Amino acid sequence: MCQLLGMNCNTPTDIVFSFTGFQARGGLTDVHRDGWGIAFFEGRGCRLFIDARATIDSPVTELIRSYPIRSKNVIAHIRKATQGAVALENTHPFLREMWGRYWVFAHNGNLKDFAPKLDGPFRPVGNTDSELAFCWLLQNLRQGLPAGSDDPTHLIEPLRQITAHIAAHGEFNYLLSNGLALYAHCSTRLSYIERRHPFAEAHLADQDVTVDFSTVTTPLDRVAVIATAPLTDNEVWANVPAGKLLLFLDGACAASAATL
Amino acid sequence: MCQLLGMNCNTPTDIVFSFTGFQARGGLTDVHRDGWGIAFFEGRGCRLFIDARATIDSPVTELIRSYPIRSKNVIAHIRKATQGAVALENTHPFLREMWGRYWVFAHNGNLKDFAPKLDGPFRPVGNTDSELAFCWLLQNLRQGLPAGSDDPTHLIEPLRQITAHIAAHGEFNYLLSNGLALYAHCSTRLSYIERRHPFAEAHLADQDVTVDFSTVTTPLDRVAVIATAPLTDNEVWANVPAGKLLLFLDGACAASAATL
Repeated sequence: MCQLLGMNCNTPTDIVFSFTGFQARGGLTDVHRDGWGIAFFEGRGCRLFIDARATIDSPVTELIRSYPIRSKNVIAHIRKATQGAVALENTHPFLREMWGRYWVFAHNGNLKDFAPKLDGPFRPVGNTDSELAFCWLLQNLRQGLPAGSDDPTHLIEPLRQITAHIAAHGEFNYLLSNGLALYAHCSTRLSYIERRHPFAEAHLADQDVTVDFSTVTTPLDRVAVIATAPLTDNEVWANVPAGKLLLFLDGACAASAATL
Repeated sequence: MCQLLGMNCNTPTDIVFSFTGFQARGGLTDVHRDGWGIAFFEGRGCRLFIDARATIDSPVTELIRSYPIRSKNVIAHIRKATQGAVALENTHPFLREMWGRYWVFAHNGNLKDFAPKLDGPFRPVGNTDSELAFCWLLQNLRQGLPAGSDDPTHLIEPLRQITAHIAAHGEFNYLLSNGLALYAHCSTRLSYIERRHPFAEAHLADQDVTVDFSTVTTPLDRVAVIATAPLTDNEVWANVPAGKLLLFLDGACAASAATL
């Protein structure tokens, strides 16, 4: 099973602390060695770092740990290959442009007998079930909303329908963002935490590292972190129920919809 | 004027030497401080590193200088903003997917009164003339070849026509690659060199660095490097004539077409 990590904030925030724990799952505290990636939205722009090596062997990991990129929406993924060879083109997150915005997608799970008809502009470059699902998801969003929409709540219902269709083919935990909001779907396993004032200390589950968020935040900051499994061992994370699509906006879970 | 750098090879090669000279133009030996980026194809996959900071101030620069990513097609760009603010979404190279391949584009120049109708799937995310030109270029390639094509020579004639149309609006030096080949257009200033056996020593023009290529190559290797201005001062670079579109394949200039 792959590992997902997402962050959605109301002010650009660096993900160095969460990433420090997360990256250990790419070969150190867990067995996912088949590549990894992380995408940061900065305004409308997006930086995507991907590497087909294990996180703990990747020079890019050191860059991300030492270069605090501030972002309101981040998606990261550590891969355990199920479908598709270990190769850069099969490494999540995947990126496409639609409606003049970048869209980033990462998937944890395994889809079976999923061979939808692609008749829109999006084609997979690699050969994973995940990238295929992403292309089909965008195709359907685009067909359902020809003029596009920058209102995150407009996308919930079409996303819910598309997600339900894909999730019928197997495990479909995913994170999706266009830089304006972050959508998270739980098919089997996903948890999240919202941090806000008063901020406290947090201690990583995968590394002996503690941060006191009260020293690096303002009282107005709000940050949601979403991960396959909780990243800290001294905070209460919420388990997302199976069959739930969540919308994260400005650092909080703003809406949800049922896909089961 | 921005700076372009491209590399096309018959075997995956690292670009550390050329990049060492090139990056100095981002604030040290030249005044381009408005962001920079570099894209590496690895198989069908593509890694794109972009940063809105000056090259010489960017932590990503250090990563690229110290991490020899091997690639057959590389495109890099250092920005001197003409149209569009200094922002990540306006930083070249730009990336899109078409026909199940990634396409990477970087532009040097300035287009005036260029406001084509975009009725295909590609939309600019930022507000540069360059990204607009890229979107329109892909739209026209896609309309001209609905089934797509992996044969680089099939693209020369449609690319020539589209390029001629855009170049009528101003300076349009560009590099374009889908990982199979590299296309280079000279509107005002572009030069290239082909290196092959017997390899010799090369000395950078922008830094006092020498490399003996004979020690890091095999006799079968062939590498073409394309740049706005020659990167070395002890080799003979070819000036591309204005109004020429070149196709680089397997480390050599394989075809050309006139756009004037």
